[in-house]
Amino acid sequence: MSLLTVGSVAFDKLETPFGKTEKIIGGAATYITLSSSYFTKANNLVGIVGNDFPAEMINILNKHGINTDGLEIDPNGKTFFWSGKYHNDMNSRDTLETHLNVLENYVPKIPEQYQNCEFLMLGNMVPSIQHETLRKFHKKPGFIMLDTMNLWMDIAMDDLKKVISEIDCLTINDSEARQLSGDYSLRRAARTIMDMGPKTLIIKKGEHGALLFQEDRIFFCPALPLEEVFDPTGAGDTFAGGFIGYLAKTNDLSFENMKRAVIYGSAMASFCVEKFGTERIQFLTETEIQNRVMEFVQLASFELS
Amino acid sequence: MSLLTVGSVAFDKLETPFGKTEKIIGGAATYITLSSSYFTKANNLVGIVGNDFPAEMINILNKHGINTDGLEIDPNGKTFFWSGKYHNDMNSRDTLETHLNVLENYVPKIPEQYQNCEFLMLGNMVPSIQHETLRKFHKKPGFIMLDTMNLWMDIAMDDLKKVISEIDCLTINDSEARQLSGDYSLRRAARTIMDMGPKTLIIKKGEHGALLFQEDRIFFCPALPLEEVFDPTGAGDTFAGGFIGYLAKTNDLSFENMKRAVIYGSAMASFCVEKFGTERIQFLTETEIQNRVMEFVQLASFELS
Repeated sequence: MSLLTVGSVAFDKLETPFGKTEKIIGGAATYITLSSSYFTKANNLVGIVGNDFPAEMINILNKHGINTDGLEIDPNGKTFFWSGKYHNDMNSRDTLETHLNVLENYVPKIPEQYQNCEFLMLGNMVPSIQHETLRKFHKKPGFIMLDTMNLWMDIAMDDLKKVISEIDCLTINDSEARQLSGDYSLRRAARTIMDMGPKTLIIKKGEHGALLFQEDRIFFCPALPLEEVFDPTGAGDTFAGGFIGYLAKTNDLSFENMKRAVIYGSAMASFCVEKFGTERIQFLTETEIQNRVMEFVQLASFELS
Repeated sequence: MSLLTVGSVAFDKLETPFGKTEKIIGGAATYITLSSSYFTKANNLVGIVGNDFPAEMINILNKHGINTDGLEIDPNGKTFFWSGKYHNDMNSRDTLETHLNVLENYVPKIPEQYQNCEFLMLGNMVPSIQHETLRKFHKKPGFIMLDTMNLWMDIAMDDLKKVISEIDCLTINDSEARQLSGDYSLRRAARTIMDMGPKTLIIKKGEHGALLFQEDRIFFCPALPLEEVFDPTGAGDTFAGGFIGYLAKTNDLSFENMKRAVIYGSAMASFCVEKFGTERIQFLTETEIQNRVMEFVQLASFELS
């Protein structure tokens, strides 16, 4: 099935305890589409970059089978830029600079040839723009997944709830789930959030794994204990890309299949953090992914007797 | 197989966001033996209480099949007392008062009829006393498990490393594993700690589950997402009691069986936090435990295809 990702394509400048980067390619849609490209070949991207964006990177996306006809290039603007510094525990970070640039007044356009996509991933963006994006479809995609962040809960909660009410699956982290629901218990928080609209909820807990909720069912997927977490940037988006890419590939929205999608998403995220930016997820092989998934199987499997 | 637990029996006074208690019964050995009593009937306790300890509570332990011949009653002393207050997130707490009382100069004595116990659980105590306890056995028990805490890493690291070098299984939480190993990565920390002696290591992560390490094998057991965590006191000890109780019952030290023991331990801990102190784990049924274990199976199970 065809997948469309709408989201940011960006420059990031990162600092972790292991080193720093110059401006490198980042952005939610970049991570999501690269990750999903290992699962589905009908992989479309809608976003915007400025005149400073390297054609070489677009080339890399295309080589992964990602259709970039929907990637606007603003000849008069610069690409969205974010720089951040991670603390020693890698679980928290400070934003050093954010320049919205071409994202400032951007409203996504959905090219005609993407109108029939069955799976839609809305990467983290201003909620009102995510909502407006949904209005651009002649017919609502069959499965709509959305990512967001705490900032929008602070400053645009009403808009966020509006778009959340129209989607099928929400992916947020544990502290965001608590903020959105106003409940510390993740089990109760999940119920409150699913009552807002999405039938499926994924709560990401970083190094502590991820929880998948649907009706009264819960599945927990651990994170792989890694020797080294080099750079957590993009791990959540890479997870989302692996998850929805696997769903688009298999076209099976059963809870059992979503569990598998969570495993594949977690496997992809575990690669992402091993190097800076997209360095690792650009160069994966089928075998590496399958071996990594088998590590999850070994980590989580037990027989009661 | 017979199990011997050596550890504190105490009075606790607790305050959580849900309420406070008067002095109630606590202590590592209390939680461990109550929890293990659901698995093994050869369940022995060595510890000390003062003249203020209610005979009624000893009666409760005995009714759970726990042999308390090794529980000394000091007619001239008072029972160890701890009071603490949990913060809103339940993951951190402040100690308000600690009175060692009879624990101050206590050295455990091993009654002759406990000398042949196959499984030994050393609850959290001064490491030099844990070490001295091991010297009291004519013949080393077949499986020795030890719990400890960050305090001893701060003030008695050498003593702690000495006793750790003589045990089979260590159980600590994630921040303690990082402190003991000096390594943030739990995967590398585990290797460093197992090099100190114990063949098996359990890293407890509270609401984030538990990791079991043995040689190059890792198993992850999630924590059950609960509606409400009422009081986390004793959860780690209850986990340890369920774990070693299950091992003593099955007398199978294979990694596959240890995985099951981790599941049973986690199930027991999930009960513990539902009420204050030992209120919940005093009154469990076989069926409740089996049903809870099945919740873990559902939470963690997936099929790759």
